[in-house]
Amino acid sequence: MPTTRVANADDIALITEHRHSMFAEIGWSTADALTTMSEHFRPWVERMMAAGKYVGWVVEDDGQPVASAGFFELEWPPHPFDPAGEARGYLLNFWVEPSHRRRGLAKGLVKLAVAESRRRGLRVTTLHASEAGRPVYESLGFRRGGEMMLIET
Amino acid sequence: MPTTRVANADDIALITEHRHSMFAEIGWSTADALTTMSEHFRPWVERMMAAGKYVGWVVEDDGQPVASAGFFELEWPPHPFDPAGEARGYLLNFWVEPSHRRRGLAKGLVKLAVAESRRRGLRVTTLHASEAGRPVYESLGFRRGGEMMLIET
Repeated sequence: MPTTRVANADDIALITEHRHSMFAEIGWSTADALTTMSEHFRPWVERMMAAGKYVGWVVEDDGQPVASAGFFELEWPPHPFDPAGEARGYLLNFWVEPSHRRRGLAKGLVKLAVAESRRRGLRVTTLHASEAGRPVYESLGFRRGGEMMLIET
Repeated sequence: MPTTRVANADDIALITEHRHSMFAEIGWSTADALTTMSEHFRPWVERMMAAGKYVGWVVEDDGQPVASAGFFELEWPPHPFDPAGEARGYLLNFWVEPSHRRRGLAKGLVKLAVAESRRRGLRVTTLHASEAGRPVYESLGFRRGGEMMLIET
């Protein structure tokens, strides 16, 4: 029976590996970009966790990590959706090992991360979903946003 | 002939009014939410401008402000699109007075804001567009992102 715990500083390498695996599976990143990202993400997440802005969860089965996910408190201007707020919840790094998919682990992790937004009084929670991940988020009330993006190449 | 200048601390009230007008025109906000937002946005943008994280531009015609726009440096985890970066450019508060529309003022402001992203070495620039605003951004290379959003009601 898988159990879930809050991540701590000893999980920084695992969280970084899971982020790397997630983007590798989506398939639009080069190997070089993923290597550089992981080098920079690792100290970033360590710093943000220490500052209380990043919260992670790890699911273990028989003592082995099989899934993880993260929450980041994202600075945001006061907006009609949260007119007195200065932050949004941002969900990231959702990863479930292929051997443990289709058991509801991702959905359980999304619920924990949304609860973290609520605990902090944040009225807006956002994320970026792959096509494969979208149905899980929709089932929990997430809807497409109006974001547009320009990427330098 | 309209001229454009960088916004300064004396423009905080104008920037706040333009943000208010923008959301009022989109139409999905309540009057109460807009009032509360403006009360909180004003000190927020003053603080962020002083910190160098917010940059604004004001377009004047015959000495009167007729349009404005803003750039915010948004904290972001290292990501494959910008693997060594810790921030994205975020464009906000684009407003052109109805009397001065369809003259390319918005497009000129978007170009200035994208140039600010480049000046800071940020490889990703995002924004949230209304349906009316989308064609301007598309003409400059912006594409729909995969964002999803959960809003507490």
